[in-house]
Amino acid sequence: MTGPLHEAHPTSPGRRLPDTQRGMRRRNLARVMHTVNAEGPLSRAAVASHIGLTRAAVSTLVDELIRSGLLEELGPERPGRVGRPGSALTVSGSGPAGIGAEVGVDHLAVCAVDLRGEVRARAERHGPNRGRGPAAVLAELSALVRQVTAEAEGAGLWPAGLAVAVPGLVAHDARTVVRAPNLDWHDADLGALLPRELPLTVDNEANFGGLAELWLGEATPRDFLHVSAEIGIGAAVVVDGRLLRGTRGFAGELGHVPIRPEGPLCACGGRGCLEQYAGEEAVLRAAGLEPGEDRIGLLAKRAADGDQDVRRALRGAGTALGIALTGAVNLLDPEVVVLGGALAGLAPWLLPSLERELGRRAAGPACVVSVSRLGSEGPLLGAAHSVVRAVLDDPGAVAERA
Amino acid sequence: MTGPLHEAHPTSPGRRLPDTQRGMRRRNLARVMHTVNAEGPLSRAAVASHIGLTRAAVSTLVDELIRSGLLEELGPERPGRVGRPGSALTVSGSGPAGIGAEVGVDHLAVCAVDLRGEVRARAERHGPNRGRGPAAVLAELSALVRQVTAEAEGAGLWPAGLAVAVPGLVAHDARTVVRAPNLDWHDADLGALLPRELPLTVDNEANFGGLAELWLGEATPRDFLHVSAEIGIGAAVVVDGRLLRGTRGFAGELGHVPIRPEGPLCACGGRGCLEQYAGEEAVLRAAGLEPGEDRIGLLAKRAADGDQDVRRALRGAGTALGIALTGAVNLLDPEVVVLGGALAGLAPWLLPSLERELGRRAAGPACVVSVSRLGSEGPLLGAAHSVVRAVLDDPGAVAERA
Repeated sequence: MTGPLHEAHPTSPGRRLPDTQRGMRRRNLARVMHTVNAEGPLSRAAVASHIGLTRAAVSTLVDELIRSGLLEELGPERPGRVGRPGSALTVSGSGPAGIGAEVGVDHLAVCAVDLRGEVRARAERHGPNRGRGPAAVLAELSALVRQVTAEAEGAGLWPAGLAVAVPGLVAHDARTVVRAPNLDWHDADLGALLPRELPLTVDNEANFGGLAELWLGEATPRDFLHVSAEIGIGAAVVVDGRLLRGTRGFAGELGHVPIRPEGPLCACGGRGCLEQYAGEEAVLRAAGLEPGEDRIGLLAKRAADGDQDVRRALRGAGTALGIALTGAVNLLDPEVVVLGGALAGLAPWLLPSLERELGRRAAGPACVVSVSRLGSEGPLLGAAHSVVRAVLDDPGAVAERA
Repeated sequence: MTGPLHEAHPTSPGRRLPDTQRGMRRRNLARVMHTVNAEGPLSRAAVASHIGLTRAAVSTLVDELIRSGLLEELGPERPGRVGRPGSALTVSGSGPAGIGAEVGVDHLAVCAVDLRGEVRARAERHGPNRGRGPAAVLAELSALVRQVTAEAEGAGLWPAGLAVAVPGLVAHDARTVVRAPNLDWHDADLGALLPRELPLTVDNEANFGGLAELWLGEATPRDFLHVSAEIGIGAAVVVDGRLLRGTRGFAGELGHVPIRPEGPLCACGGRGCLEQYAGEEAVLRAAGLEPGEDRIGLLAKRAADGDQDVRRALRGAGTALGIALTGAVNLLDPEVVVLGGALAGLAPWLLPSLERELGRRAAGPACVVSVSRLGSEGPLLGAAHSVVRAVLDDPGAVAERA
């Protein structure tokens, strides 16, 4: 994946190392960074032995990463360790931060995540966004971004980039929303409407949700199908640890897999799409509830309280999900199907019928279905972590900017 | 980008030198081989300038490839060229050959393909295989393999490996057929039943059909969905030039995507699977024809002759394919859907309803549908070429064996 910080700037002035030397230095900075991130706190000597460079070479790299605010020294290692004491290195909690944002149909959210993966600031606003133009919604989102950025800066962080999750199809330029039917947005260039001082990546919320599961999930395998819902239903197909994006970047539209070809018309132009049976509006209708804010919370509460109409509606949605997932599992053969987003909170009432359908239909042993512990925070966290991962993957780019 | 000559080995150079040297030699043999294959005939000097090695280094590599029978010299270049005449190199037409085999429900076929991609020998036998055990069928297949191998050897070739396409799910060991419902085979180890002197790869026929399209198709993109049929319906998902195999190797089971959830029971245990509407048996039934040998040919002939029952049956199959493909396209967003196998021969009567369904259902502009020119030869050619590609990708392995 090309993250916001991945562009190479081979014409940068000043010290002009030959290309191969410069490339190798950047790769080695990344190796040091990843080693400390995965194994730290570690002394310089431990880093050197871990990646097979000399201690002197590692010290030069570490000094550069400390100067850029990407690594910190914790002071001398605790006594009791064998050998000469060294200062333990850890990933900085006061360097760059990833700013993640989410445009939901009924809410906006923004957070700042530091290099250690901690959420250091967060803001949200509830209220409908459907039918409001991108300009009005993104003006509000920009205000939240500035608020969170200011809070993060107050804690000693600086924003390394902004990633925005949207419930729609995003063009390859990673800024244009081609179509977001549940917001009624078409061909909207978000880049022009967001703070320009931050490198920007816009992506589909289901993609960021799937990436969050890959990066932050417990024991998530490298081949899985992540299914999530807010108002619509989306999926992220992860194959060998990489998100499958499709030719136009539109892969994962599970909500528009037809499950009853003569079923009701869908906003996408199709008929009998999964969303017509398991999307939020369809479930609310089947449960006899009106659309409105936090309907997912209401459905979960009513189901927990034993409301039979709600339980029947969720059973029906689980069956519909099971039919669509049978097709997806037969096509993709993932190791696990992960229910994320709003589906995670409704899983107790969706899973029995979903698993029954998958079990009786799928060729071969039924695929395992698990529930994301990230739930509806997935897309927002995935967005923020995509910026953090880009920094960890190429700390040299930040070092050159800093 | 890290090229084969640009790898950094910062750790203990002394200890690892033999391995890296050997690895580099093998990689350079592959580069020479691929260059001559893609650009040849070429002189040694042209190869050297193409891959950026010295002429002396290239000559050593070329000599080894000639000794192993992988390259041939055509003699001095034709006059009229500028500069000192050199002997033009070409991929050998008398070296290793890939032996491809296909176990169909109603036929067996074997062919030998040389490194230039030419089919040099071919044999087939028609007659039903369903319900006969693997031992009886593979005894016949082995006889065909020996016949084709002998013919290829008579033409100066030697078999580098055997690849077998089967209409079923194959385990990761690439020899065990886990399930082939249309043959009624389960957990059959083909390795024990085929000539042991040849390195063996068994794979699903739809996978080999998709690979054939990737390698031999005209202007086939690197992201496509290849749909093929013999008795069953299978698909190969190719993403960025690589076949998506799934966790258990079972990806691509398009025939078992449910398109009418309350439809007829399928042999897979599901209901309303695509195969129940567009599989050969379903189409014959809808057309009022009996199952039997070469029914695809009969369907095509009747349809071409204007038989309205057959045309109606194929229209229905096209509609069913369109519904299942809508789901697949929404999930995977391929650049093209390619109809291969038996579907290619029936395309004139399937395509109108298929494309109509895809066009009115798919979110976004409808995916392009094209027809494979390989048709039902795809899986057999894909199998043979998989052996050839393995030789081209690692000629050093052959050189060491030769």
